[in-house]
Amino acid sequence: MTLVLSIEEQQEILDMKSVLGALEVLYREQAAGRALTRQRSDVIVPNQTGVYGLKSMDGVVPAFDVGAVRINSDVITWPKVGNTKRRVKVPAAPGNRWVGLVLLFSVSTGEPLAIFPDGFVQRMRVGGTSGLGVKYLAREDSKVLGVIGSGWQAGSQVLAACEVRNFERVVVYSPTRENLVKFVEEMAPQVSAPVIAADSAEAVVSQADVVLCATNSLQPVFDGTLVRSGQHLGCIKNCELDDNAFKRVDRLVIHSIDSSPKHLVMEEAEAPGEDRGWDDSHGGIDWSNAPTLAQLVSGAVPGRQSSEEVTCFDNNLGLGIQFAAVGAKLLEIAKEKGAGHELPTEWFTQKVHP
Amino acid sequence: MTLVLSIEEQQEILDMKSVLGALEVLYREQAAGRALTRQRSDVIVPNQTGVYGLKSMDGVVPAFDVGAVRINSDVITWPKVGNTKRRVKVPAAPGNRWVGLVLLFSVSTGEPLAIFPDGFVQRMRVGGTSGLGVKYLAREDSKVLGVIGSGWQAGSQVLAACEVRNFERVVVYSPTRENLVKFVEEMAPQVSAPVIAADSAEAVVSQADVVLCATNSLQPVFDGTLVRSGQHLGCIKNCELDDNAFKRVDRLVIHSIDSSPKHLVMEEAEAPGEDRGWDDSHGGIDWSNAPTLAQLVSGAVPGRQSSEEVTCFDNNLGLGIQFAAVGAKLLEIAKEKGAGHELPTEWFTQKVHP
Repeated sequence: MTLVLSIEEQQEILDMKSVLGALEVLYREQAAGRALTRQRSDVIVPNQTGVYGLKSMDGVVPAFDVGAVRINSDVITWPKVGNTKRRVKVPAAPGNRWVGLVLLFSVSTGEPLAIFPDGFVQRMRVGGTSGLGVKYLAREDSKVLGVIGSGWQAGSQVLAACEVRNFERVVVYSPTRENLVKFVEEMAPQVSAPVIAADSAEAVVSQADVVLCATNSLQPVFDGTLVRSGQHLGCIKNCELDDNAFKRVDRLVIHSIDSSPKHLVMEEAEAPGEDRGWDDSHGGIDWSNAPTLAQLVSGAVPGRQSSEEVTCFDNNLGLGIQFAAVGAKLLEIAKEKGAGHELPTEWFTQKVHP
Repeated sequence: MTLVLSIEEQQEILDMKSVLGALEVLYREQAAGRALTRQRSDVIVPNQTGVYGLKSMDGVVPAFDVGAVRINSDVITWPKVGNTKRRVKVPAAPGNRWVGLVLLFSVSTGEPLAIFPDGFVQRMRVGGTSGLGVKYLAREDSKVLGVIGSGWQAGSQVLAACEVRNFERVVVYSPTRENLVKFVEEMAPQVSAPVIAADSAEAVVSQADVVLCATNSLQPVFDGTLVRSGQHLGCIKNCELDDNAFKRVDRLVIHSIDSSPKHLVMEEAEAPGEDRGWDDSHGGIDWSNAPTLAQLVSGAVPGRQSSEEVTCFDNNLGLGIQFAAVGAKLLEIAKEKGAGHELPTEWFTQKVHP
């Protein structure tokens, strides 16, 4: 049978602890050369309302007996917000829905094991990966978790960090007060530490032992001169941290080397006047030789060496193997609990030689 | 609704004429820069019985309002046959089935339109593409179609060629007599010209105006000194033709430039002593500057210029856009005829931002 699992079913059965466990095994396998991932590719063409992007990435991890393909089928527009055009993924599918899929296949038999929307696993694997950065780099005695951002990625960062350290409180800042209040309300029941709204990014950084940035910003989100010795910093894009922050970092680890997606863009589909890139030199960091999470988790490079070090994990870009690892764990739990909707495997297999 | 279509349902509704029509539009779109394809990637890892390969390619064609992802999930072994090891794709999925899937998405809305096994469309798009080579390069008055091969690709080559020329007879050779006889029996009712078994490849080449090779051979399948002026040659791998054949060719067109798949191979998964490559120089052909089918179909390069020319179409490798074009046509017909199995689109979409 091939399992179809809704986002709601996934949320009910897959917790962050399981995700962290699966990812930890994954990075050991990757370090040993036993996990292979195919760089993301984006095919971008014009459509009636803006552009359409078909994105895919693959990853195979024999230890989980799973190969994964993750596909995003995105309708993108650039509505004008104030004086700037903002990039918006439009939920243009029937019922105002977004389209992202993960397909899991068996390494042993080739059979399609599961097909499910990607949004929840996407979030959990990003958060879980940042969480491993905290686990291997932050001080054991970290007391205050600081989070900047209140969007779709920030929540799983909180869950993951609280799984690997016993924080006494979680302090969050986000520039739009309404979003911040909503986020604090949502997160409070999900972790044992109190979750508190801060008035500024500076207030977060000045009291936190661990500062995790999870924003859409293409600009630094706090003043890096505020970084104190012993702190751990995390970002999902290195533009969230400024040059001063990076100057303070004693130990930098990144998710993956050479992970920039391969873009195929049809001529008329160029983004309208939007600068998607940023200067990531940050005073001369050699990203192509930075230690990776796989090296850190496997012990090939050391973690934190003293309570004074400033450490940083740049969760720089996703890999297909993350979907293989987290997907395999999700599938394992779903089978145990009888979750999801089973479809006949014959619908997705064939008697003719492909 | 998202449509699931079995191979049997596809075979019932999609004929070669429709495939040729869709592909002809496709290559005009491609020539105009309005079709984008992502190079195939193969991720190869060891498994218990040999190796596992997860292969994918993407293609988007706005004119069809379709983006396609084609995935193959292959279990491969190398059983020893005589003194050589032979590469075999094992139908290891439940019910002894192979696994290949095509997913179609809407360029307008992003929604998943269809999911179906790839084996039939795979065959039709290869045959149809070779058929366009015949249409634009073979003599209008071609009388005899010669086919070398009786395997899974040869049949659609016959169907496609017979759709674009009025052949008086079809002559086929394949080294295993049993396969040849079976193939002739199967093809005879599908085309109006009589289908006749030949005793040798030479017998085919000596009487045919159009010679199409569709084999698994990594060696030349006939003696190229037999090529006569005015003939059209077709192959699905250029190793099927020898250097003498290529020397006789006045006008060469290939399917696609720079189409070699990107391989990611885990160390222990190397093919056991199998040489998959071949010397494709054929006396110095510059494949990277050969005219393409898109240029031919769009008129950017000329087709046959005289009845004496020897023409050749090398259908060198598949592209994701072929699955977008043929898939879109299949979907259009399926909707008209109410074929297939409709699944709720909500199963494959989401309310959360991916």
